[in-house]
Amino acid sequence: MSAQEQPILLETDPGRYRHWRLEIGGETARLVWDVREDQPLRPGYTLKLNSYDLGVDIELADAVQRLRFEHPEVKAIAIVSGKDRVFSAGANIHMLGMSSHGFKVNFCKYTNETRLAIEDASAHSGQRYLAACNGIAAGGGYELALACDEILLVDDGNSAVSLPEVPLLGVLPGTGGLTRLVDKRRVRRDHADIFCTLAEGIRGQRALDWRLVDAVAPKSRFNDLIKEHLERLVATAPVRLGPGVPLPPLSVEAGADRLDYSSLRVAIDRKGRTATLVVHGPEDEPPGDAAALRAAGAGIWHLRMFRELDDALCRLRFNEPEIGLLILKTVGDPDRVARHEAALAEMAAADWFAGEIILMMARTLRRLDVTARSMFALVEPGSCFVGSLLEIALAADRSYALDDPGKLVTILLTRLNFGALPMGHGLSRLQLRRLHDPESLAPLEEQVEAGDAPRFDAGAALRAGLLTVAADDLDFKDEVRLAIEERASMSPDALTGMEASLRFPGAESSETKIFGRLSAWQNWIFQRPNAVGDQGALKCYGKPVRPAFDWRRT
Amino acid sequence: MSAQEQPILLETDPGRYRHWRLEIGGETARLVWDVREDQPLRPGYTLKLNSYDLGVDIELADAVQRLRFEHPEVKAIAIVSGKDRVFSAGANIHMLGMSSHGFKVNFCKYTNETRLAIEDASAHSGQRYLAACNGIAAGGGYELALACDEILLVDDGNSAVSLPEVPLLGVLPGTGGLTRLVDKRRVRRDHADIFCTLAEGIRGQRALDWRLVDAVAPKSRFNDLIKEHLERLVATAPVRLGPGVPLPPLSVEAGADRLDYSSLRVAIDRKGRTATLVVHGPEDEPPGDAAALRAAGAGIWHLRMFRELDDALCRLRFNEPEIGLLILKTVGDPDRVARHEAALAEMAAADWFAGEIILMMARTLRRLDVTARSMFALVEPGSCFVGSLLEIALAADRSYALDDPGKLVTILLTRLNFGALPMGHGLSRLQLRRLHDPESLAPLEEQVEAGDAPRFDAGAALRAGLLTVAADDLDFKDEVRLAIEERASMSPDALTGMEASLRFPGAESSETKIFGRLSAWQNWIFQRPNAVGDQGALKCYGKPVRPAFDWRRT
Repeated sequence: MSAQEQPILLETDPGRYRHWRLEIGGETARLVWDVREDQPLRPGYTLKLNSYDLGVDIELADAVQRLRFEHPEVKAIAIVSGKDRVFSAGANIHMLGMSSHGFKVNFCKYTNETRLAIEDASAHSGQRYLAACNGIAAGGGYELALACDEILLVDDGNSAVSLPEVPLLGVLPGTGGLTRLVDKRRVRRDHADIFCTLAEGIRGQRALDWRLVDAVAPKSRFNDLIKEHLERLVATAPVRLGPGVPLPPLSVEAGADRLDYSSLRVAIDRKGRTATLVVHGPEDEPPGDAAALRAAGAGIWHLRMFRELDDALCRLRFNEPEIGLLILKTVGDPDRVARHEAALAEMAAADWFAGEIILMMARTLRRLDVTARSMFALVEPGSCFVGSLLEIALAADRSYALDDPGKLVTILLTRLNFGALPMGHGLSRLQLRRLHDPESLAPLEEQVEAGDAPRFDAGAALRAGLLTVAADDLDFKDEVRLAIEERASMSPDALTGMEASLRFPGAESSETKIFGRLSAWQNWIFQRPNAVGDQGALKCYGKPVRPAFDWRRT
Repeated sequence: MSAQEQPILLETDPGRYRHWRLEIGGETARLVWDVREDQPLRPGYTLKLNSYDLGVDIELADAVQRLRFEHPEVKAIAIVSGKDRVFSAGANIHMLGMSSHGFKVNFCKYTNETRLAIEDASAHSGQRYLAACNGIAAGGGYELALACDEILLVDDGNSAVSLPEVPLLGVLPGTGGLTRLVDKRRVRRDHADIFCTLAEGIRGQRALDWRLVDAVAPKSRFNDLIKEHLERLVATAPVRLGPGVPLPPLSVEAGADRLDYSSLRVAIDRKGRTATLVVHGPEDEPPGDAAALRAAGAGIWHLRMFRELDDALCRLRFNEPEIGLLILKTVGDPDRVARHEAALAEMAAADWFAGEIILMMARTLRRLDVTARSMFALVEPGSCFVGSLLEIALAADRSYALDDPGKLVTILLTRLNFGALPMGHGLSRLQLRRLHDPESLAPLEEQVEAGDAPRFDAGAALRAGLLTVAADDLDFKDEVRLAIEERASMSPDALTGMEASLRFPGAESSETKIFGRLSAWQNWIFQRPNAVGDQGALKCYGKPVRPAFDWRRT
């Protein structure tokens, strides 16, 4: 997937879905996957048996997002297969076998983020998910089921759930499967060991006994079972008043070296291997109440801008692999951003739409946290690193500010900095700045809550630990230029490993274990000849040869 | 490092140290590293500037262990350099550059375990460590300092602490450095980012400001500073009454396909790629009191056997890379093991030596947990999976028991199963069996505490979740044979990644982050051409060529 190929586009909508159908029926919905074999994202493989590629997952991610914004009345969603006797065969092996290392890693990261978005919708938006496995749910197919609140399996003597990656392919079920088995579903680790090495998987009562599924029923009763469980899930979900807010296509103009969105400009410097992202603050004042917010809909600055940032991050990951450093800037009126943040935080207490906007911002920031590119924030005069935009600087590996009496920068905290935009391990980015002195945050939060947020100039922000480096007008440019050049000269792999280790101090969660432990192991395996060599298991799959392994273990 | 080469031996003693001196002085000790350039473990590189290889680390591990058993009166240890103006240049680059992937991974794992043993000694044995950096402490040199309770740095305008792996070598500081920086020392992650990309490191006051060191002093005051800090550390340590217990060499007879210790037999089946470890229970009754325990010294069964197991695990890791499956068995009288365990647990409340034995057992079991080989426990008639030996079965990926009315097996819990032998993330192996129902352990613990430990036969143990599979006489052999053959046929890399993901459900700690997140990333990088290719950074180091990188990131 080089930049020369057709770029991968992440936007879609139900009218354009090729592999999924979103069927809304009052408080419940059905998300029907019926993957078209002949519609792979790239030519070269067919998507048999509901196996999936990135194109399939892009539609799923879109559906999950739209359900939250456009269909707030939906409380429970059944993921069902449109194919007879097969739920899903998982990620398409032939696609994996022919993909570059980088694409495989990025594919897994994106699909992981989609599954986490499902869990996020359940946890925070009251939209519960149920996987109705009407047949074999193998590999990534079962991993999608694991991301749901409940897993139902038809008991027909044949249908099984399985994670056959290790025995058949010599790779891991890397879309969260191993972590969710033992951490989320609390399957015993010795049972999980058997399950993950059993190519044919586990059926019926034993799948239930081992906590691999939540209910089984014969084929004749399966639709009733789905209905019962959907009703039960509906009963646990909060009421959210519609109507929904449509998410129109993003406004974006893409050039060879740039992406211009309405509130975000991305400029790519291929020679320097950097991309500069400039976020533009709001031009209008915030809506006065929830009705005005609803009237603004997806045009409201926060939602529009974070959707744009999310899209840009995915495009950079997939289409610009050699861009190693993201330079993050903002332009705008800090006080106006603060007013927008205050209004949004205020409305979120009672209005689901305002809440959804904040949840979407949080997901985008978490996408930023696990983006395997170096990130420097540049805090310059005219910038507006305030609240959620300050989170961008706090997510960066470093921040540099111009500290000059004649050209002041203003940094402001808002209520959103104190827990509303958590990282994947549950801590706020502000907490990470004060791990050595956690109590010191309480007075700051009190000030912000009292409407008396301190105004930090560069020097004060530096002293408060909000910035990494502050330099005066004479030194700023040189210092930044040198830092960028140095960063761009280092081993991209070493930087990826280093950043993945430094960005998540403190606790780990199931989510960060998926990215930090499971994915790191999978990345290792994705390099190894035992998987991807000419005689590796992933390469040999489906051919009449057996893989040849180098048996040395560590 | 193939089996054809001379095997690596892990045992040593102070009389044989080549690189370290252990100087005992009452309540304090000095551990002086003065690495002999001309004494590498393997020919082909010189150990300049206190750089280290496995041979150096084996001596350090030995010294840390001996201090706990042989010198209980020591409360604080200063790690000092025997070289002028250099603390340590870290792991030897040329050794890393010429090592196989597997050796590099195993070397890092072992050195990590040594550093964790230092922290374990401080946390549980009241032996505090201080790193006295009299000069440059680079890479692994600084990582050793990070494992100490305190880091002192001479302030001479030149001496610095540094982690130059990323900028100079294209690999990670993988001996816990990245994790300890942000998790243990709570260095701010943006400061850590600058520090880890700054080849020359950070000196003096700035190192102090950024929490990289705990105190600095000019050269003239440095010895006084060490003395002051040692005294302060001594004051925080508990009193432990000597005399110490000498650790004599292990009794081991090594053949081509076997290792015979006093209470452990290891038989290697190269064709099947398995090793069978048979632990023999005690032959004598337990000592009646702490004085009798002291008289038995290192000959006491628990200590002797776990030292043997520890040695065997390290030998298998380094010398038998193709052995992919460890088959774990026990032979002995279950009730006698239970009596030994009860006596040891009882004495540990008041006797430091009994306590040290349990701590050493816990470390060995944690070494087992992170051993990257599959492990099956076989529970057969005549076995004694009781207490700490049951932990071996609980550490295994699976356990198989013969369930036959005429050939009963007996499994017993002891007090040691309830938290005294924790895994690296702090949970007990028994807790992992009941993560879905944690309250169910309390009644079991009460029974054991009351001296009324339930006797489990195979069926009861299966129902209690202590075993994975129980099979009758007709099926047992076939089922086990098939499981072993299947396991031995799967990709060793996929199994390593799978086991590393399934063995640690629940919480993560700094320790498990080091093995699960940091090491996994390092293993990935250790494969990548950007590090180990002909033009990779690790290969080019010290040569008059610059590395050439593939710039693609994921």
